[in-house]
Amino acid sequence: MSLVKSFEWRYATKKYDTARKVDPAVLADLTETVRLAPSSFGLQPYKFLLIEDKAKLEEISRAAHGQPQITTGAHVMVLAVETDIDEKTVASYIDKAAIARQTERKNLEAREQFVNTVLSKLDYNQRIVWAEKQAFLAVGVFVSAAAEAGIDGVEVFYQTVKQDDPNTLVFFEVFKSQQALKDHLAADYTQAFFAGVKDKLAGKPASKILKEL
Amino acid sequence: MSLVKSFEWRYATKKYDTARKVDPAVLADLTETVRLAPSSFGLQPYKFLLIEDKAKLEEISRAAHGQPQITTGAHVMVLAVETDIDEKTVASYIDKAAIARQTERKNLEAREQFVNTVLSKLDYNQRIVWAEKQAFLAVGVFVSAAAEAGIDGVEVFYQTVKQDDPNTLVFFEVFKSQQALKDHLAADYTQAFFAGVKDKLAGKPASKILKEL
Ligand SMILES: Cc1cc2nc3c(=O)[nH]c(=O)nc-3n(C[C@H](O)[C@H](O)[C@H](O)COP(=O)(O)O)c2cc1C
Ligand SMILES: Cc1cc2nc3c(=O)[nH]c(=O)nc-3n(C[C@H](O)[C@H](O)[C@H](O)COP(=O)(O)O)c2cc1C
Repeated sequence: MSLVKSFEWRYATKKYDTARKVDPAVLADLTETVRLAPSSFGLQPYKFLLIEDKAKLEEISRAAHGQPQITTGAHVMVLAVETDIDEKTVASYIDKAAIARQTERKNLEAREQFVNTVLSKLDYNQRIVWAEKQAFLAVGVFVSAAAEAGIDGVEVFYQTVKQDDPNTLVFFEVFKSQQALKDHLAADYTQAFFAGVKDKLAGKPASKILKEL
Repeated sequence: MSLVKSFEWRYATKKYDTARKVDPAVLADLTETVRLAPSSFGLQPYKFLLIEDKAKLEEISRAAHGQPQITTGAHVMVLAVETDIDEKTVASYIDKAAIARQTERKNLEAREQFVNTVLSKLDYNQRIVWAEKQAFLAVGVFVSAAAEAGIDGVEVFYQTVKQDDPNTLVFFEVFKSQQALKDHLAADYTQAFFAGVKDKLAGKPASKILKEL
């Protein structure tokens, strides 16, 4: 699948439908994608925080020149970087890497030393800037995942014709949930589409429900 | 579509099949996606450079501790940030925005002033760091687009069963090109899959070729 269509569609929304929340399954997908984001040495020196506390959001909005997006959004993610990045940070990463790769810690100690050598060339503030850059990369991944998740739970939407019978239309559509399908069928643009093609079809459309394995 | 599957699959490859290049259509998709990447104020103070000159690649490899990835990769993208970010940068962006939005320049001048005010609080080096962060965000988008483009031109792959007849398997597959389909059918994992299910099917699989509208 190509991401470009999602980027042709996405934009920085300023006003939100305050009655709606993002489907928890979609939110879980977004955070899982970011968890898998690459970073320099794989250190991921940041945390994604989902802020729901009203008083905190007011505070954040003030820090963002009082912009209303912070207090009107259904969900606010804050990306915070580690500030004390040192040999302890690296050691803790190597500890986890040894477990994940099912190898002995000593096999990763050359790597640990290399990372420490590179970091030792950066002072306290430079390390924070380095961490912030990794965080911005993760934001790029987050934006991509959100764009790909799209609106209203439509995951995939292909409009095709049979190659050897171009008068037969075949649509392949994947929805996040039963509810997403219901929402899609009820949406204005779907209703408008069916009203537009009504007189042009030879018969009533038939649908087959498939279940992913 | 959810990006998470692509991130479960992707990793920082260190060794490459030097006989292969990325399909130009895929490469064009990647650069187009990055062109649409968001950035602070939309200023995109960076350029993606596709470097092919051998001597330049040797030079870059030396700057990257002599790592072989730079000289053995089929394509090397370098992300370079603007260094002189000032009122001229902003003016040129506003010029383009006026054209793109089909509005008079004067309608965007309040915006121009606001951006200049924010940037005026950053000194020369801080602006470069600011630009680098925007570039890292774009790298996150690029990595996402590359992960989504995947290997071997398979764009979409769904394995399903009919809900009311769970013994009927339905696969929906989308390929980047005829060649991508041929490559996929010839691939070891496809051959292994068909060998594995051969004795378990009631009949020979039938396929229908669809063309996207
Ligand atoms: C900004 C950045 C710089 C990187 N630099 C290098 C590098 O110089 N050499 C290298 O082999 N890998 C490099 N990597 C790859 C990371 O080590 C890798 O992304 C990380 O360990 C996570 O592993 P994964 O990408 O395979 O999930 C870099 C990654 C990022 C995001
Ligand atoms: C790092 C960053 C910070 C941003 N900060 C704000 C902001 O404070 N307020 C706002 O309305 N938009 C903000 N934006 C949105 C950008 O203005 C927007 O992404 C850019 O103009 C491109 O437009 P698009 O995202 O609609 O394609 C920010 C974007 C990025 C990437």
